[in-house]
Amino acid sequence: MHGYGEDKAKVLTRLHRIEGQVRALAAMVEEDRYCIDVLTQISAADSALKSVALLLLDDHLHHCVRQAAEEGGPVADEKLTEASAAIARLVKS
Amino acid sequence: MHGYGEDKAKVLTRLHRIEGQVRALAAMVEEDRYCIDVLTQISAADSALKSVALLLLDDHLHHCVRQAAEEGGPVADEKLTEASAAIARLVKS
Amino acid sequence: MHGYGEDKAKVLTRLHRIEGQVRALAAMVEEDRYCIDVLTQISAADSALKSVALLLLDDHLHHCVRQAAEEGGPVADEKLTEASAAIARLVKS
Amino acid sequence: MHGYGEDKAKVLTRLHRIEGQVRALAAMVEEDRYCIDVLTQISAADSALKSVALLLLDDHLHHCVRQAAEEGGPVADEKLTEASAAIARLVKS
Repeated sequence: MHGYGEDKAKVLTRLHRIEGQVRALAAMVEEDRYCIDVLTQISAADSALKSVALLLLDDHLHHCVRQAAEEGGPVADEKLTEASAAIARLVKS
Repeated sequence: MHGYGEDKAKVLTRLHRIEGQVRALAAMVEEDRYCIDVLTQISAADSALKSVALLLLDDHLHHCVRQAAEEGGPVADEKLTEASAAIARLVKS
Repeated sequence: MHGYGEDKAKVLTRLHRIEGQVRALAAMVEEDRYCIDVLTQISAADSALKSVALLLLDDHLHHCVRQAAEEGGPVADEKLTEASAAIARLVKS
Repeated sequence: MHGYGEDKAKVLTRLHRIEGQVRALAAMVEEDRYCIDVLTQISAADSALKSVALLLLDDHLHHCVRQAAEEGGPVADEKLTEASAAIARLVKS
């Protein structure tokens, strides 16, 4: 049903770490920390989030998209169009 | 000391919301939700994070950088170089 | 051999337009035009370049990757890994 | 009038190189070269374009924005808001 089966633990670990990074960002702002230091940590959280997205996308291509392409027909088209739209959202986010 | 003084409450509200978005992402993965739906939410969190960064940067330019530039000298140079490096990190993240 | 067969004319038209945008950028700098106006045109050329990349990627998924997945085996794995790496480069560029 | 005075030659050299990269991209498509190879070159051109933007932005901050901030008043506000908007366009492009 989902392509990230094997990487589920890794994905969860990373997401929990990013959640901690964002909580730490709020604490920095709460303590009036210097803007540039906050910005540096935002860039780090942003990169970490993009890395998780790329891992999920890689799993999705290797499992869901691959299976759909093997089956062929309109389902394959649909999955490919859907993956393409997700990539576009990621590139533009 | 920090340029986001006036926007502090707004920045905190947004960061808390993003923390909630990332926690919801982990819950989605925990529940084996469909990859593409997870990716859509990652793109949303990513955009929200970039918006906070741009707000902080705007405040930083209008306060810290402006003050440093008014004072002039090596401090102004330093602040401008620092802001420029933060922008580069953000553009590349 | 390439997946953008049907969109070849469209891709070429867009690339020629982007080439013109970059040449116009050089002319703006040559004429000492205002930095912010140059930056606005760079952002426009950058967005146009990303749009062409997303179109090529979409064609690549629907043709090359789909065919490779139908054939299955190590070729399918290879094509999917290759596509994934190209997406990562694009997201990070 | 423009902040990239000292870097003008460097900016022009880079823009001419990017123009060549985009022309080479069109030639690759004309010759039906492999999608992934075209995408790799698009990512390279995109990174090069962003680097020029960051150089121009750095010069703009160190010259135009610094001068406006030194003068103060509404002109300073205007320049800072304008720079901030250009940064946002770049981050989102």
